[in-house]
Amino acid sequence: HYGEAELEDLVGVTTGLAWTEVGGELLSIEAVGLPGKGRVTTTGKLGDVMKESVQAAESYVKSRAAAFGIKPTLFEKKDIHVHVPEGATPKDGPSAGVAMATSIVSVLTGIPVRKDVAMTGEITLRGRVLPIGGLKEKLLAALRGGIKHVLIPKDNEKDLADIPDNVKRGLEIMPVSTVDEVLRNALVRPLEPIEWTEPEVDPAATKAQEKGADGEILRH
Amino acid sequence: HYGEAELEDLVGVTTGLAWTEVGGELLSIEAVGLPGKGRVTTTGKLGDVMKESVQAAESYVKSRAAAFGIKPTLFEKKDIHVHVPEGATPKDGPSAGVAMATSIVSVLTGIPVRKDVAMTGEITLRGRVLPIGGLKEKLLAALRGGIKHVLIPKDNEKDLADIPDNVKRGLEIMPVSTVDEVLRNALVRPLEPIEWTEPEVDPAATKAQEKGADGEILRH
Amino acid sequence: HYGEAELEDLVGVTTGLAWTEVGGELLSIEAVGLPGKGRVTTTGKLGDVMKESVQAAESYVKSRAAAFGIKPTLFEKKDIHVHVPEGATPKDGPSAGVAMATSIVSVLTGIPVRKDVAMTGEITLRGRVLPIGGLKEKLLAALRGGIKHVLIPKDNEKDLADIPDNVKRGLEIMPVSTVDEVLRNALVRPLEPIEWTEPEVDPAATKAQEKGADGEILRH
Amino acid sequence: HYGEAELEDLVGVTTGLAWTEVGGELLSIEAVGLPGKGRVTTTGKLGDVMKESVQAAESYVKSRAAAFGIKPTLFEKKDIHVHVPEGATPKDGPSAGVAMATSIVSVLTGIPVRKDVAMTGEITLRGRVLPIGGLKEKLLAALRGGIKHVLIPKDNEKDLADIPDNVKRGLEIMPVSTVDEVLRNALVRPLEPIEWTEPEVDPAATKAQEKGADGEILRH
Amino acid sequence: HYGEAELEDLVGVTTGLAWTEVGGELLSIEAVGLPGKGRVTTTGKLGDVMKESVQAAESYVKSRAAAFGIKPTLFEKKDIHVHVPEGATPKDGPSAGVAMATSIVSVLTGIPVRKDVAMTGEITLRGRVLPIGGLKEKLLAALRGGIKHVLIPKDNEKDLADIPDNVKRGLEIMPVSTVDEVLRNALVRPLEPIEWTEPEVDPAATKAQEKGADGEILRH
Amino acid sequence: HYGEAELEDLVGVTTGLAWTEVGGELLSIEAVGLPGKGRVTTTGKLGDVMKESVQAAESYVKSRAAAFGIKPTLFEKKDIHVHVPEGATPKDGPSAGVAMATSIVSVLTGIPVRKDVAMTGEITLRGRVLPIGGLKEKLLAALRGGIKHVLIPKDNEKDLADIPDNVKRGLEIMPVSTVDEVLRNALVRPLEPIEWTEPEVDPAATKAQEKGADGEILRH
Ligand SMILES: [Ca+2]
Ligand SMILES: [Ca+2]
Ligand SMILES: [Ca+2]
Ligand SMILES: [Ca+2]
Ligand SMILES: [Ca+2]
Ligand SMILES: [Ca+2]
Ligand SMILES: [Ca+2]
Ligand SMILES: [Ca+2]
Ligand SMILES: [Ca+2]
Ligand SMILES: [Ca+2]
Ligand SMILES: [Ca+2]
Ligand SMILES: [Ca+2]
Repeated sequence: HYGEAELEDLVGVTTGLAWTEVGGELLSIEAVGLPGKGRVTTTGKLGDVMKESVQAAESYVKSRAAAFGIKPTLFEKKDIHVHVPEGATPKDGPSAGVAMATSIVSVLTGIPVRKDVAMTGEITLRGRVLPIGGLKEKLLAALRGGIKHVLIPKDNEKDLADIPDNVKRGLEIMPVSTVDEVLRNALVRPLEPIEWTEPEVDPAATKAQEKGADGEILRH
Repeated sequence: HYGEAELEDLVGVTTGLAWTEVGGELLSIEAVGLPGKGRVTTTGKLGDVMKESVQAAESYVKSRAAAFGIKPTLFEKKDIHVHVPEGATPKDGPSAGVAMATSIVSVLTGIPVRKDVAMTGEITLRGRVLPIGGLKEKLLAALRGGIKHVLIPKDNEKDLADIPDNVKRGLEIMPVSTVDEVLRNALVRPLEPIEWTEPEVDPAATKAQEKGADGEILRH
Repeated sequence: HYGEAELEDLVGVTTGLAWTEVGGELLSIEAVGLPGKGRVTTTGKLGDVMKESVQAAESYVKSRAAAFGIKPTLFEKKDIHVHVPEGATPKDGPSAGVAMATSIVSVLTGIPVRKDVAMTGEITLRGRVLPIGGLKEKLLAALRGGIKHVLIPKDNEKDLADIPDNVKRGLEIMPVSTVDEVLRNALVRPLEPIEWTEPEVDPAATKAQEKGADGEILRH
Repeated sequence: HYGEAELEDLVGVTTGLAWTEVGGELLSIEAVGLPGKGRVTTTGKLGDVMKESVQAAESYVKSRAAAFGIKPTLFEKKDIHVHVPEGATPKDGPSAGVAMATSIVSVLTGIPVRKDVAMTGEITLRGRVLPIGGLKEKLLAALRGGIKHVLIPKDNEKDLADIPDNVKRGLEIMPVSTVDEVLRNALVRPLEPIEWTEPEVDPAATKAQEKGADGEILRH
Repeated sequence: HYGEAELEDLVGVTTGLAWTEVGGELLSIEAVGLPGKGRVTTTGKLGDVMKESVQAAESYVKSRAAAFGIKPTLFEKKDIHVHVPEGATPKDGPSAGVAMATSIVSVLTGIPVRKDVAMTGEITLRGRVLPIGGLKEKLLAALRGGIKHVLIPKDNEKDLADIPDNVKRGLEIMPVSTVDEVLRNALVRPLEPIEWTEPEVDPAATKAQEKGADGEILRH
Repeated sequence: HYGEAELEDLVGVTTGLAWTEVGGELLSIEAVGLPGKGRVTTTGKLGDVMKESVQAAESYVKSRAAAFGIKPTLFEKKDIHVHVPEGATPKDGPSAGVAMATSIVSVLTGIPVRKDVAMTGEITLRGRVLPIGGLKEKLLAALRGGIKHVLIPKDNEKDLADIPDNVKRGLEIMPVSTVDEVLRNALVRPLEPIEWTEPEVDPAATKAQEKGADGEILRH
């Protein structure tokens, strides 16, 4: 059923954790790649903050593409659609950022996401994981939904003191401070970086610079 | 008359089921293909949630194109227009998602939709069918409108206990959990998957990767 | 004077019928073709529902182009502007749909619209004509304005019982259920369908498909 | 001073007539041509109705280009900017339509507009002139501003009975029913139509049609 | 300090005069040219009227380009950004129009603006200067800010009667009625017009026209 | 932890200073370069004024590109994304302008920003630094967060009288009046200007101009 852990490790589907007035719940972050030009579409009644967190996840992944094993030229021919079911329920907040990044990397590398991992954390444009609210409710939802491992922001570690012991026993809780750690723990196999040299497209400009470097001090 | 089952099996026309304050009713989901570039237009006074469910249906179909027998290059030259009559009546909600996907697949493959089938269900980006509300009213409308077979979300099966026996006798009710099952039951003939290899467009990038493969482990 | 039947059969000008709080009135639906790329512009203070009905009319005409004698390539070089005078009066509703479709077909084929015909009816994307409101007021306006023939939706035939006899004697009232019937009655000469085979642009894809069709059953 | 008749016959500058709560006033409709692609920009705090009337004027002129002596290819390289001073005063309404059309034709042909002519009237997409309000106040403003000739809609002729005699003596009032008449009276020299055959760009389509025309009756 | 006359004659920086509830003040109108396609961006919390006055200034300059010594082809490769510090203060009104035009011309010609000149006046699309409000407060601000010469609209000359004598002695006040006069007084050196013939791009059209000229009267 | 000085000198990450009702705080301004066409995206719940200050920073950097050692052709293939964590907290105001400019220059040159420097100041389009509010709270936040050097607008120097002595002892406070000074102090190594001559793309225009120069005075 929807709202429980996935039945298989899937490409592009990451389990996030949401926090509502009536408690926590599992949130599927679904992504698919489509023929296109590097744009990202979002659906699922997402608020502005959540939409911006998809944009940040996208830019972060693009800026680290080669390190993640993604050829940068892929963005010239792929769009990505990120959807969060259930479509009639409004969703907002930045804490699904790490799950957004994970789904995008999964879709672009073809590496599935582990079905027994859930995660929560805001991401920054350089891949740091920032703290979130509602940790307790989110962990309870993870346990209830059959999740085994939960990635939480390092800066939320201090909140673990308030979490009931049975929750801490039932889940492996992993504090992380970077998206790299998230990906290491959430994907079913490691990312394999590629070598990438951006093609030189500007010989004239290069010459100008070399000439300038010859000795003169160039003020403009 | 409008609001009753179709008179013929038509390409691009699927019967959905809506739920309003005054009861359920049949909803024609009409789609046509037009010269274009892969964009989808919607009309019929659709609310944001219903528009997003068209977008999700579209992306799902694009991401599964070859499996559905649709050449991905078709999207470079076709737009799709999805319209829901009656144009002055506001409509919203995600439950027409499966009908949207069915009309889009029908239009892109040229395979007609069965006129005696109606359906209701939210779809996700990976083709799961999520539960909906108003099942009883929708089934009553289907019966009244001359429908024979109704596809409902597997997760709504539990609600069948509350449905009057005459309705259950008058309709074949088929619970489904994926869009694939929906298409199998709604189209007049089976989809025929095609083989599709995306053309290699990036020789430079490939070389960079091969070079990288010389010693380090670089897989894509 | 504006608000009366046209003085000549004109290309791109169809007489619709509007219904306001103070009674019915004639409504000129004007269309012109312009150099462009297949876009449609609307002016005349049209509400969202009326704008969507222009979009539906446009897509319907595009999807039936060859049957109406319109070369599909025409849409690559023509825009259409649809205007409804009087520009300061807000207008809305779907019932001008058939008149929109008629003006668009007239402009694209160059066949004038009969000046003594008025019409009302919502259109669907597959060319069905749906019922409208205010039939009585609209027929009175048609009679007053010097119209001879009025096309009404088949599903409004039942409302004719309430129409005064002098109105029914003064007008030829023709119930229609498809846009094809509308065009047959409204244009001064019949449409002449053309043969049209979409140019094959995708040899690689075709081969893939043929190969697949050779015998193997291809699942993806 | 602004608000009085122009001092010279200018290209692209037409004198309209506005009607406000405190009386009528002269309104300069200024247009310039710019390198571009056939788009029209408007400024001067124009309301939606007035903006739409610029769009209608533009489409009307484009659709009659050759008859007005304008090479249709001109629209591929020209934008037009229409501005109505004074920029802080909101303006709206359709009655400046004829002046908009006149300024646009003037700019595209290079023929100046007569400085002693003012005008008022809504235009339709096929060049008809529809009636306006505030005729008396507008004529008073024209007289006060030093205008000699005023073009008014034919359908406003009946309102002349209420106009003071001194106004009717001081102004030549010319009722018009088409934009053609407006242009004939407002430009300093007559328009000179050109011959224009749209280049044939579609040999394949033509053949298909010829083949169809050979004998078979083609229904689609 | 900001709010005083500039320390140098700068390219693209013109001193305007604003009028607020607490008095007049100097307003820097900054413009820079950027690689682009002839678009204009505005920042500085500008209201709609002020944004439109930038558009009008831009179109005026484009339409007079050769007369100002600007090659029209420059617009195909340059964008212009107009900014009005201080970014948190809302600004509106048309009276900065002449300063906008001056900054744009300065940036496109590379001719600096005189640091001791301030100006106020609405511009029209054909380069007329229209009257403004708050003259007294603006002149006081100019004097206070160290300005020597102030350009004001000719139509505000009548308001000089109310200006204190010390202000009139401390400033050279120059009434102007055209943007040409503004530029003559505000730039550090005169504009040098260039000869410009638009390249003939339309041989086919020309032929059609010549052909027409063979017998009928067809002049352009 | 977030809200303290960075742990390393990073490319594209500058420490700004924000001022809220509950005091000052450190604000990371993050920028990354992405394949693109010279556009700038912003995220982090930024208000209109802060978004405009990113635009101003961007245009300033573009207009000074060669002086900063940035090849102008770089803008044809790079987009920049500027993000300000924390994504759920609304942020506005112009005072992060200098930090925006610093992050953008850092990303385009690859030169890291000093982790022990924080800054505040509005920028103008020609690189002046304008005064800001909340200086005291901002300096306290800098001290608390482990910052060593703070760049403040020259025009705020007068406010230093109100700053507690321990704050002035704990921080090196550097008043600056230009973005050049900011960059000199904030980047880990100096910018190296390049020589840049814009390629001549307009031979026809040049000829026209030369021809004009034959007799009349036509200089550019
Ligand atoms: Ca739920
Ligand atoms: Ca969240
Ligand atoms: Ca209904
Ligand atoms: Ca629904
Ligand atoms: Ca009317
Ligand atoms: Ca209607
Ligand atoms: Ca006035
Ligand atoms: Ca008006
Ligand atoms: Ca100020
Ligand atoms: Ca102003
Ligand atoms: Ca904080
Ligand atoms: Ca700030």
